[in-house]
Amino acid sequence: MNLKNKIAILGAGRIGTTIAEDLSANFEVTYFDLHINKRLSTNKYINFVQTNLSDYTQYPTLLTPFDLVVSAVPGYMGFKTLQAIIQAGKNVADISFFEEDGLQLHELATQNNVTAIFDCGVAPGMSNFILGYYNAQININSFECMVGGLPKIRVKPFEYKAPFSPIDVIEEYTRPARYIENSHVVTKPALSDAELLHFTQVGTLECFNTDGLRSILHTMAHIPNIKEKTLRYPGHIALIQALQQIGFFNKPEINIEGKMISPLALTNALLFKNWLPALNEQEFTIMKMIINGENKTISYLLYDEYDQISNTSSMSRTTGYACNAFAHLILNNLFTKKGAYPPELIGHDGACFQFVMNYLAQRNVNYNKIEA
Amino acid sequence: MNLKNKIAILGAGRIGTTIAEDLSANFEVTYFDLHINKRLSTNKYINFVQTNLSDYTQYPTLLTPFDLVVSAVPGYMGFKTLQAIIQAGKNVADISFFEEDGLQLHELATQNNVTAIFDCGVAPGMSNFILGYYNAQININSFECMVGGLPKIRVKPFEYKAPFSPIDVIEEYTRPARYIENSHVVTKPALSDAELLHFTQVGTLECFNTDGLRSILHTMAHIPNIKEKTLRYPGHIALIQALQQIGFFNKPEINIEGKMISPLALTNALLFKNWLPALNEQEFTIMKMIINGENKTISYLLYDEYDQISNTSSMSRTTGYACNAFAHLILNNLFTKKGAYPPELIGHDGACFQFVMNYLAQRNVNYNKIEA
Repeated sequence: MNLKNKIAILGAGRIGTTIAEDLSANFEVTYFDLHINKRLSTNKYINFVQTNLSDYTQYPTLLTPFDLVVSAVPGYMGFKTLQAIIQAGKNVADISFFEEDGLQLHELATQNNVTAIFDCGVAPGMSNFILGYYNAQININSFECMVGGLPKIRVKPFEYKAPFSPIDVIEEYTRPARYIENSHVVTKPALSDAELLHFTQVGTLECFNTDGLRSILHTMAHIPNIKEKTLRYPGHIALIQALQQIGFFNKPEINIEGKMISPLALTNALLFKNWLPALNEQEFTIMKMIINGENKTISYLLYDEYDQISNTSSMSRTTGYACNAFAHLILNNLFTKKGAYPPELIGHDGACFQFVMNYLAQRNVNYNKIEA
Repeated sequence: MNLKNKIAILGAGRIGTTIAEDLSANFEVTYFDLHINKRLSTNKYINFVQTNLSDYTQYPTLLTPFDLVVSAVPGYMGFKTLQAIIQAGKNVADISFFEEDGLQLHELATQNNVTAIFDCGVAPGMSNFILGYYNAQININSFECMVGGLPKIRVKPFEYKAPFSPIDVIEEYTRPARYIENSHVVTKPALSDAELLHFTQVGTLECFNTDGLRSILHTMAHIPNIKEKTLRYPGHIALIQALQQIGFFNKPEINIEGKMISPLALTNALLFKNWLPALNEQEFTIMKMIINGENKTISYLLYDEYDQISNTSSMSRTTGYACNAFAHLILNNLFTKKGAYPPELIGHDGACFQFVMNYLAQRNVNYNKIEA
């Protein structure tokens, strides 16, 4: 590991902040954002460059000094940002969770001699990576992933918090969910197939269909059964369904006392307040994965909590550290292929797999394996 | 009974329509409204006068030919309408359920030599009347009334229908509920004290506090314990509370994408569609009253359904026929006092009580008594 490697971090939101802090222990870290980050500004080992990240023309100049780029910009600008980084010829780990299909940048990355890893979080991210690892070892018959990030203190009516726009969550709650069942892609209504699951750490949660498989639908299409579900406290989804049924998620504007208004826009404003995490809100991330194949069942459970010593949310820990682990695969020449890769196309490599799992375990993010 | 009595009905909404149809069997009925009523227009015994009922200056001229007036106008204009009827010197039964205190018109009615009975429905209405009857017979220690009108077909998420503006229901759901407990007026949050009740006819319902006692708080203040609760299908109120907590019932305008909008106004528009009864929606009215005193418990149960022969809703039947029964007390000289009276100040008269109960029973609206 070259201690003098220079890392550029684009975007210093919650997760970008954790990424910067984590990488600053070993690298020269510079973050780029429109505003200075108060928390990062107290760290003398972290540099700040004030810039408008949506001005992509400046990227070649801006990124010249850096050995690797981490993109932690908001999802809506993630794809264009990744494209600009690739065009600037820089290796990159991306955690922006853009809506577009990252595989479409594969050829561009190859042409530019760049290694780009995208969807570097938990799910998508580690779930893809672990699936990729076992896909190289056994004939998988089914893969199921249940995942959620939840507050520890349950406050009615939603018992849910989100440090981002509710619009994004509502989008996830309304977009039909695509799965693979018996080797066919099937589409199910969002929020369907609700069922209760019990976890030692947090009690009973409810899971339901959401559209979260992304690249896996293409790269792992040979696996006959694949599904992903979202975890929430029981009752959350019934309320969401009620709001949807009443019409609070409708996008088209309606005339209210002479003003044209989108119900969704108003709902977003109200939910934003309702879902805003408290200062140092205690929360956790939980993910259960079940892989079946060749008469084996391999399960992984991730349970991670808010870190009270560093005041770092579990959401930032689990996604930010995963992203940094993938960044290290590039920096340490463990993954050297050129192109744009989702994690499931990297996990087959045993050395990569061990490195990532160790990197996370060192930060107390533990994917515990249960083989039966 | 004088067959030639002429009755004026102000307002031909759902309940006004039923009132007109019922009275037309024995009287010369004329209804006044801004628009002709399609259903009533096919009845050749019912006259129509097109008029703007909020032009109160015309009332003396308009009402001259009539022996009695029934006011079935919308609640928001009910008080002013009743005032104008009294000033025109006409006896009146009022079912407009205005917000204001009808007792404030007592002096005006006395001065004008008018008998005015207001709150002539079920609750307020028959619940007041029955309470008044027993109040004259025993020392009542407690009076409890639970009442609701519900659709037979339960559709999620609300399992509720309302043929009027949701704003009125939300107002009932948000205004603090005033009760009498141990001879003190206490105020409880609306929707509080939810409990499940079981009914042979409709199964389990949920009741909760609402502010429905109105005049009883003043006229029956000597009774140490008085409360009223509203009945809904279980779960309805949890959803209402969630909407309230999220902020959907907030009146002050907020800025949504540059437009100032009241969340309540948007909610009202969405709920209006959601709560709109279907054509010939099957529904029922249910009311349970419990009177305790002198070691006796007297219970009344009203259960009434949509009438499929006449296509008349239970809401119209139970309130409209009650109003007509009170109108008859005036027409038949059974109640001759001058002033403005709520039903609990009439019920003490045994002849009046018997007449009203018989009038309703003849129309198959049965208040069944259980004495224990």
